Amino acid sequence: MPDDIMDTARRTAQELDRRDPLAGYRDAFVIDDPELIYLDGNSLGRLPERTRSHLHDAIDRGWGRNLIRSWGEGWFDAPVRVGDAIAPLIGAAPGQVVVADSTSVNLFKLALAALEHQAPRTKIVSDEMNFPSDLYVLQGAARLRGVDTTLDLLQPASDGIHADEARLRGAIDEDTALVVLSHVTFKSGYMFDAAEVTDRAHEVGALILWDLSHSAGSALVELDAWGADLAVGCSYKYLNGGPGAPAFLYVRTDLQDELVSPIWGWFGQSSPFGFDLGYTPTEGIRRFLVGTPPVLSLLAIEEGVAQVHHAGMPAVRAKSKALTAYLMDLVDEVLTPLGFSVGTPRDPARRGSHVTLQHPDAYRMSRAMIDAGIVPDFREPDNIRLGVAPLYTTFLELCEAVERIRHIVEQRQHEGYGVDRAAIT
Amino acid sequence: MPDDIMDTARRTAQELDRRDPLAGYRDAFVIDDPELIYLDGNSLGRLPERTRSHLHDAIDRGWGRNLIRSWGEGWFDAPVRVGDAIAPLIGAAPGQVVVADSTSVNLFKLALAALEHQAPRTKIVSDEMNFPSDLYVLQGAARLRGVDTTLDLLQPASDGIHADEARLRGAIDEDTALVVLSHVTFKSGYMFDAAEVTDRAHEVGALILWDLSHSAGSALVELDAWGADLAVGCSYKYLNGGPGAPAFLYVRTDLQDELVSPIWGWFGQSSPFGFDLGYTPTEGIRRFLVGTPPVLSLLAIEEGVAQVHHAGMPAVRAKSKALTAYLMDLVDEVLTPLGFSVGTPRDPARRGSHVTLQHPDAYRMSRAMIDAGIVPDFREPDNIRLGVAPLYTTFLELCEAVERIRHIVEQRQHEGYGVDRAAIT
Repeated sequence: MPDDIMDTARRTAQELDRRDPLAGYRDAFVIDDPELIYLDGNSLGRLPERTRSHLHDAIDRGWGRNLIRSWGEGWFDAPVRVGDAIAPLIGAAPGQVVVADSTSVNLFKLALAALEHQAPRTKIVSDEMNFPSDLYVLQGAARLRGVDTTLDLLQPASDGIHADEARLRGAIDEDTALVVLSHVTFKSGYMFDAAEVTDRAHEVGALILWDLSHSAGSALVELDAWGADLAVGCSYKYLNGGPGAPAFLYVRTDLQDELVSPIWGWFGQSSPFGFDLGYTPTEGIRRFLVGTPPVLSLLAIEEGVAQVHHAGMPAVRAKSKALTAYLMDLVDEVLTPLGFSVGTPRDPARRGSHVTLQHPDAYRMSRAMIDAGIVPDFREPDNIRLGVAPLYTTFLELCEAVERIRHIVEQRQHEGYGVDRAAIT
Repeated sequence: MPDDIMDTARRTAQELDRRDPLAGYRDAFVIDDPELIYLDGNSLGRLPERTRSHLHDAIDRGWGRNLIRSWGEGWFDAPVRVGDAIAPLIGAAPGQVVVADSTSVNLFKLALAALEHQAPRTKIVSDEMNFPSDLYVLQGAARLRGVDTTLDLLQPASDGIHADEARLRGAIDEDTALVVLSHVTFKSGYMFDAAEVTDRAHEVGALILWDLSHSAGSALVELDAWGADLAVGCSYKYLNGGPGAPAFLYVRTDLQDELVSPIWGWFGQSSPFGFDLGYTPTEGIRRFLVGTPPVLSLLAIEEGVAQVHHAGMPAVRAKSKALTAYLMDLVDEVLTPLGFSVGTPRDPARRGSHVTLQHPDAYRMSRAMIDAGIVPDFREPDNIRLGVAPLYTTFLELCEAVERIRHIVEQRQHEGYGVDRAAIT
């Protein structure tokens, strides 16, 4: 019976891959181990072939040969240029997105600026589904602002998978300065109704900041249409920008000159090479820059972003939904009877681009999966995230992954692993 | 007569190059245009050959093939590993240096943490010779701390070249929370007597923070021996870490657990993969980390730092002094009669690794120099910086540079250039 299921699933996968309008994009990535089923593009996206040559050129010609002169030949403008390239992928008109620093540092800058702007309001609303580093930044920002500032951290719905949007609406009130949420949450992959939450924040005069780390390049984001105020996000997941590539931030145009970034540096100065003794922020989105950007890691983003743009976000999102739907159906049929459950929303409008499997022995299972040539990631306490990256994940890979996981469980291979967490998983 | 001088200077240069114990290091750098006299290693150091292959490997194998698994194979530890590699170059025992963010962001973190630690003291002492981005950061930090916090910005000595150390000693008083200075200043290359200034700060209970951007890899720095409290610095100048490579920060061991970094993020959390909802800073220097580091730009630093370590700081400093002395002598003889003056301290104990030429028409002169195959940099209003990098600058290059500059002036070539500043110089 399971074999019949797998035969059918395999034929379905092959058919879906054959009809996939984005199938050709897989060849644009470096894939030199075709046996590896890489389901962690939600942590680190694959290396685009063109990025490889783009970077080799940046190193050999840009740094090695042109040296300092490269600053005038594309490096200095890169934070804005790459920001403007990301903008259409998140529904933003030009001049509102810039690439700089890490997601956490960008969140710090925007959250502190927003809190000052919103005084005397002192309440920040977020939820426990938000990425912990975001919560840490907000806790630190609240402490800096002083004792009156509070962080209202909402619990998820009782299933632990969905947000409790009703409770959220209630928590956003006339005292709320700022709402900070991950548009797609890192653990369950829950996706907020961003337009509605944004409206609610504005109804009571609060600002909203969306963390788009798990959305950019995989989900439809319409910052301008939502009327969003602020956003941050990371470029090394579905934008395939490379390990730790600098993050992006968004500030809507008419808010830019009203906000004071707390970290003042020469890249945000009106005339960085005038070397004035006093800080005067430049106009527009550049004022949220601070210091010299990590050029190689910044340039690494360009080709990955261009590729997503070329594929088109509607097609990317359609494939993401099809991949997660296919995977969840197969998990239901094959893995649920073996003790797994799906920890991701069933409603496609409420889920992002990864499927979380829950299992009591998730940690050891994830170790066994890695040795079986599947790369997921493990998230405490019992979650295995399977990320699907629409530009290079195939339906057949998902079928094969489920087959391998079934094999692990049936052979009890995971029981051969220890339960001590490695420092890095 | 000038030709006699140049003949002698050339023979001297050849002899000095012949006897140079570091001469062999030049071959370890990518130099594919031997006619180019690159005197801007104080802005962007050259590309070491080994960095080239190190980076190609990090891209192709680390990112392309190993993907997320590379985090457990050297990436996660890199901020501390590279910090510990830089530590001996700045006189620091292990566990006190970490690589993260930009110099400006690091200064922000340490300055705010220090101000909180030093409360109720509210005065910051710095000087106008400090790098403007440092001053901007301090102005922003003072504003965040509130109205009582002041920034006392001292003027240089009347020559504009030296610091007024007597005035500085007077300004550091019982109200002083923090002293922030560039050990080697960016414009004149003045080098502070760091041990003495550090002592003065400690005499009155102030903390001191040294910006080592122009020192690391070219000047003798003894943070532990000085008893320094805090330091920041950049890795892309004399450490040859590549464009915008992340910066380092130093916090002396016994101060680490007393300081609270204002930007809380998961890389500074006690258990980053535990995903706790509340922030608990980890022990030691890692608590000054924030978000995911830009891995490619971070790894780019390693080989450059290893090379400086291999050459040995005493030899590096000795050659730096010899190069600047040779250059200043030749400028005196050949260029001073043509309207230039030296804007750098004559006392070798008081100067770093660049020589600043002052000229009323410095901007146009610097444009003409670039077209004549010399890369200096221009700093408003009348400064041309000639940086010497002990690992790859030769005495003969300095001789040749002076000869070309003389030619420019004699042929009045600079008069063919406009005075409008390019955005980037």
